[in-house]
Amino acid sequence: MKVCRIAYFNSAHRLYNPEWSDEKNNEVFGKCNNPNYHGHNYKIEVWIEGSVNQETGYLIDLKILKQIIKDEITDAFDHKNLNLDCPEFKNLIPTLENICIVCWNKLSKALDSSLNLSVKIWETENNLAEYSGE
Amino acid sequence: MKVCRIAYFNSAHRLYNPEWSDEKNNEVFGKCNNPNYHGHNYKIEVWIEGSVNQETGYLIDLKILKQIIKDEITDAFDHKNLNLDCPEFKNLIPTLENICIVCWNKLSKALDSSLNLSVKIWETENNLAEYSGE
Amino acid sequence: MKVCRIAYFNSAHRLYNPEWSDEKNNEVFGKCNNPNYHGHNYKIEVWIEGSVNQETGYLIDLKILKQIIKDEITDAFDHKNLNLDCPEFKNLIPTLENICIVCWNKLSKALDSSLNLSVKIWETENNLAEYSGE
Amino acid sequence: MKVCRIAYFNSAHRLYNPEWSDEKNNEVFGKCNNPNYHGHNYKIEVWIEGSVNQETGYLIDLKILKQIIKDEITDAFDHKNLNLDCPEFKNLIPTLENICIVCWNKLSKALDSSLNLSVKIWETENNLAEYSGE
Amino acid sequence: MKVCRIAYFNSAHRLYNPEWSDEKNNEVFGKCNNPNYHGHNYKIEVWIEGSVNQETGYLIDLKILKQIIKDEITDAFDHKNLNLDCPEFKNLIPTLENICIVCWNKLSKALDSSLNLSVKIWETENNLAEYSGE
Amino acid sequence: MKVCRIAYFNSAHRLYNPEWSDEKNNEVFGKCNNPNYHGHNYKIEVWIEGSVNQETGYLIDLKILKQIIKDEITDAFDHKNLNLDCPEFKNLIPTLENICIVCWNKLSKALDSSLNLSVKIWETENNLAEYSGE
Repeated sequence: MKVCRIAYFNSAHRLYNPEWSDEKNNEVFGKCNNPNYHGHNYKIEVWIEGSVNQETGYLIDLKILKQIIKDEITDAFDHKNLNLDCPEFKNLIPTLENICIVCWNKLSKALDSSLNLSVKIWETENNLAEYSGE
Repeated sequence: MKVCRIAYFNSAHRLYNPEWSDEKNNEVFGKCNNPNYHGHNYKIEVWIEGSVNQETGYLIDLKILKQIIKDEITDAFDHKNLNLDCPEFKNLIPTLENICIVCWNKLSKALDSSLNLSVKIWETENNLAEYSGE
Repeated sequence: MKVCRIAYFNSAHRLYNPEWSDEKNNEVFGKCNNPNYHGHNYKIEVWIEGSVNQETGYLIDLKILKQIIKDEITDAFDHKNLNLDCPEFKNLIPTLENICIVCWNKLSKALDSSLNLSVKIWETENNLAEYSGE
Repeated sequence: MKVCRIAYFNSAHRLYNPEWSDEKNNEVFGKCNNPNYHGHNYKIEVWIEGSVNQETGYLIDLKILKQIIKDEITDAFDHKNLNLDCPEFKNLIPTLENICIVCWNKLSKALDSSLNLSVKIWETENNLAEYSGE
Repeated sequence: MKVCRIAYFNSAHRLYNPEWSDEKNNEVFGKCNNPNYHGHNYKIEVWIEGSVNQETGYLIDLKILKQIIKDEITDAFDHKNLNLDCPEFKNLIPTLENICIVCWNKLSKALDSSLNLSVKIWETENNLAEYSGE
Repeated sequence: MKVCRIAYFNSAHRLYNPEWSDEKNNEVFGKCNNPNYHGHNYKIEVWIEGSVNQETGYLIDLKILKQIIKDEITDAFDHKNLNLDCPEFKNLIPTLENICIVCWNKLSKALDSSLNLSVKIWETENNLAEYSGE
């Protein structure tokens, strides 16, 4: 059994590898390398796998999961510049893939270890990523 | 290969464990414990896994799957009070998770046993569950 | 210039005219007349028309509009039985049209009278209503 | 008769009035005032009103409207920082309302003056604005 | 007060003006002029404006509107080739605009003349038209 | 880690098995067997599984995946009649399932063999299929 809670955060970011020349950054990251940043509405789906508690009929109380997502993800990234404001991306390029891994790591620490976690993030209407910890 | 058919049903429900005190019910279920019920538009995704028939190009005729969903799910739960009108929830709290399990059980009995079944149910824009029979 | 804020509330209701026989209620309201209630996820779009404040660039601060919708609509109707819990529908059948009028009236009183108001409500994926005060 | 073409652009911005103190900016704009910017996926609906050409059956060829939106809006704002990269917002706070007016002005100049224009912009799933030139 | 009912139909069509040369048809209609046809999932929003009946709380029973849309639109156009199967387009190019006008005319005849009618049709995720009878 | 890119194509098709009588074709395929064709807006989700490149933070550059989908899928099927214009379906009934398999095969050949591929296709709002190569 799996349950999922969805949330949103709106952030600025820039894709840039400091070890590369400007030319190589432009070649690889194109307009995502704009030094003045651009931004997205990120949609996050947090999937939890586990078993249902017979007394409550809940796998996990989704109100609690909502609060964990707020504490770990929304409060950390919403209305932030991922490159400048968020220590998680100090030495990590905030690509969709790396944002997905960072969110998985933060949520994984906050959840009971008996639960399997999977995180799906939408960067635009047409681009998304999914990470399950391996 | 998997195919999926989507349907909707609109129901009232209340989350309440009769073995608990009112205080504990309120503590665990919060506003979902309203004794006068509240309601949702449930969206169900029915996923079938199997192999494609070479003559028809179909895994299963989705018109047939549509009819099975109508017979087993929509006719049973649409415009109903899950707690009062539906025997499936006489002794089972109609949480999202339990609704998902009940739908899986009903559909599983109606489908050919060679097909694998997975059921995903959306209770709100942001809350969903998935059950695959284990 | 118009701005819009969207919110959601999940309620139970029943369509029933107490001045009619059961036969006539069933004939007119069909399965919406279920005496044990059914329910919906209602989506509300609140549209405000006015002029933009040159200092703020806002027509109305959408954070303020979000709070007004919470106070007037969500806190009043979310996880409620519209027929039993909400005095607005004590003598009014909670059809989609009447819910739309009630929401318009409640929001209209809470908003500055210089602003034009329009309310759109979705009852299902395929049914919606719009009311602008006349 | 009206036709509409939808497009998307992803931008960073900051809400900030340079004539105000930092305190007042924070009070009015809250987290939207983050000096390091945040961002959004903007969705724009461009509505054109006019009459249908009897020979083509078109009000306007939507491929042409698509190109105008690309030239005037997407190329100007996509993957840009509205405050730093876009001269349109040099002396204008890039609120949703002002972005809507700027897009209307740019599109209005590019379209035949016999056509009525209306622009709707979504900043998040729940916030949008509409401008029709008055 | 307005209410709206949404429906879908899936059709093949081709944009082609028989009074033009093939060159001109290709120039104006591009890939929409494919002689073997292409197709779309059309989404139709049928908006009715009128006043609410005090006894029923309905402007119009949406079950009745659903049936009218089935009789006039879905049964006529769903799983059809608009050019070959539908007499409405025998001498009319099935552009989005003309489909919108045809649907408005058919629905208008089937509805009580005291009701104002507006029809919105989506041809793709990004292209739509609206017609209100003038 | 998985990433996904979404695209659309609009096609006509007909479900018809040439080895069957017209009666059997009508019985099995119903209105999908219309000899004049009907059509759909197909939505394709292309999922790639692999590992993240530490230098770029990308699993695969989604701009490159977008181009591959254009070359292999959109240019081949958009605004086409699948039965008449597309050699892939010369001897294959263009059911949703077979379209999914054909897209998987075409994309699989164009992608690095170290990447796992899964393809999901929506034929309508309520019907979809998924294929992962087995």
